[in-house]
Amino acid sequence: MTNRSYAILGTGAVGGFYGARLQKAGLDVHFLLHSDYEHVRQHGLVVESPEGDFTLPQVKAYCNADEMPQCDVVVIALKSTYNHLLPKLLPAALKDSSVVLLLQNGWGIETEVAKIVGAERVMGGLCFVCSNKVGPGLIRHLDYSAVALGEYTPDYQPAGITERMRLIASDFERAGIPIEQAEDLMLARWKKLVWNIPYNGLSVILNARTDELMADAHIRILVEQLMQEVVAGAAAYNRAIPDSFIQKMVDHTAKMKPYRTSMKIDYDEKRPLELEAIVGNPWRAAQSAGVELPQIAMLYRQLKFLDAQNREQREDSEN
Amino acid sequence: MTNRSYAILGTGAVGGFYGARLQKAGLDVHFLLHSDYEHVRQHGLVVESPEGDFTLPQVKAYCNADEMPQCDVVVIALKSTYNHLLPKLLPAALKDSSVVLLLQNGWGIETEVAKIVGAERVMGGLCFVCSNKVGPGLIRHLDYSAVALGEYTPDYQPAGITERMRLIASDFERAGIPIEQAEDLMLARWKKLVWNIPYNGLSVILNARTDELMADAHIRILVEQLMQEVVAGAAAYNRAIPDSFIQKMVDHTAKMKPYRTSMKIDYDEKRPLELEAIVGNPWRAAQSAGVELPQIAMLYRQLKFLDAQNREQREDSEN
Repeated sequence: MTNRSYAILGTGAVGGFYGARLQKAGLDVHFLLHSDYEHVRQHGLVVESPEGDFTLPQVKAYCNADEMPQCDVVVIALKSTYNHLLPKLLPAALKDSSVVLLLQNGWGIETEVAKIVGAERVMGGLCFVCSNKVGPGLIRHLDYSAVALGEYTPDYQPAGITERMRLIASDFERAGIPIEQAEDLMLARWKKLVWNIPYNGLSVILNARTDELMADAHIRILVEQLMQEVVAGAAAYNRAIPDSFIQKMVDHTAKMKPYRTSMKIDYDEKRPLELEAIVGNPWRAAQSAGVELPQIAMLYRQLKFLDAQNREQREDSEN
Repeated sequence: MTNRSYAILGTGAVGGFYGARLQKAGLDVHFLLHSDYEHVRQHGLVVESPEGDFTLPQVKAYCNADEMPQCDVVVIALKSTYNHLLPKLLPAALKDSSVVLLLQNGWGIETEVAKIVGAERVMGGLCFVCSNKVGPGLIRHLDYSAVALGEYTPDYQPAGITERMRLIASDFERAGIPIEQAEDLMLARWKKLVWNIPYNGLSVILNARTDELMADAHIRILVEQLMQEVVAGAAAYNRAIPDSFIQKMVDHTAKMKPYRTSMKIDYDEKRPLELEAIVGNPWRAAQSAGVELPQIAMLYRQLKFLDAQNREQREDSEN
């Protein structure tokens, strides 16, 4: 078995979890860290998980992308609000055969990465995972872990399943991660947004966990209406998402353990929200295809206001 | 000059302000109070106002509607969330010639009052006033004071300007209150909602004063879109509100002193929100006329959630 090497750019809730699982499965993993660098270099990574807690006392930790070896798979697991760093981080980490796997939420971000590294290197990955970073080098995995992989092509023409996708899938499966190999990355991204837009957005605006949102009859209707708008956005790009998918997402979330969404955690920590990637980009994409999404537009504008107020408060408290 | 008598049902930010101004102008005013009764009976009413502070050391205060004299004009100035008390309060206060003047926000509430007292008695009044009750018997008037009066008829057919309306208008004008005599109460109510729905709703959802809302470019757009939906609701009832009116409301609010809306004050005080009168009724009215208002629908559902959470917290803190 070839042992592919992985560079994890961003060792947080997502990168820390998947990277640790890949290393535990025997793969050669290199972690780029920022604030946790010293701690992780000395103490390694800890993952608490219902699938079994584990510690990696020694990990290959880096605080500088230039010092990382060139890996077979370069995983972008930063928050999308840090993607302005990618032109600096990515080139050093790549060799000719490297695949760049983008494990981020949102719409249209592969196109930005393709501008840096070339479209032919880019693969998208959608993480269906409830996971938080709760301390330096400490990842708390709560629920789910599946990843959907999809090849990127310019204009998101469906690219089918490729050999390199199968190889990466086999690495993740070796690490116990369920993998879906998606033939159409854009469809996969719209489907992910069916969940992300309503729950991330409303959790911030209404200061609520998923269980609180689902317990309210009015919000259940609103969630479904927002989901319908995402489906309308997908339809504007000739991607069909059946009504049964909405019902599945709603039922699923109602049964899920109470969850604070990633956008809510960012908001509570006074970090910038992944608002453009998750809400702004798909809304504008639908608009430019001639479809108005009035409730998503309202969600976006409410979140822009709250994000700005939130960061103003942060600056106040830092002064 | 005939000296008409006024019964003020609900001596708060609105009833306390207008009632005190009418008494100061020499009219015979009777105040129904609840929690402030003892205080006001002993100390009277105080109005702080940029138009001049004044005290009424003695007012005719009642804690029981049955003990009030039957007055020429019975002013309903309760929060609409207390309108379930009206079948008990109103009949005792009326004589054959009494007019019931409803100084409340919202849509369709005259119809409920007409069921109790008969349509021919009912007049609507819309208050354009920034005023808060800040302590027992203490009203802080901030800005504006105008009232638009309109005769009610079943189905809100425009009733024009009547003799009794002119008389009531002259009393208010004697008290220094600018009066508009509206020929079409329903049009006046929709126009008022152009302001009330966006600012009351968003101030609660986004935890903001009017000046904070207006300072944000995204919220300015959202406010205008919500206003457009109110105009669409009015149009469904063949009431035309020109675009220039929206612009006037927005410009007006941008120049207004920073204001915490009445719904925001209710929310902060953990009181029930006037949500059905101000948002739910007009939204459902538009729907039943075949017009969808998706952003107002979203506003309504968000507010229903927040109102329920807010009162749950109140119950928690009372236990």
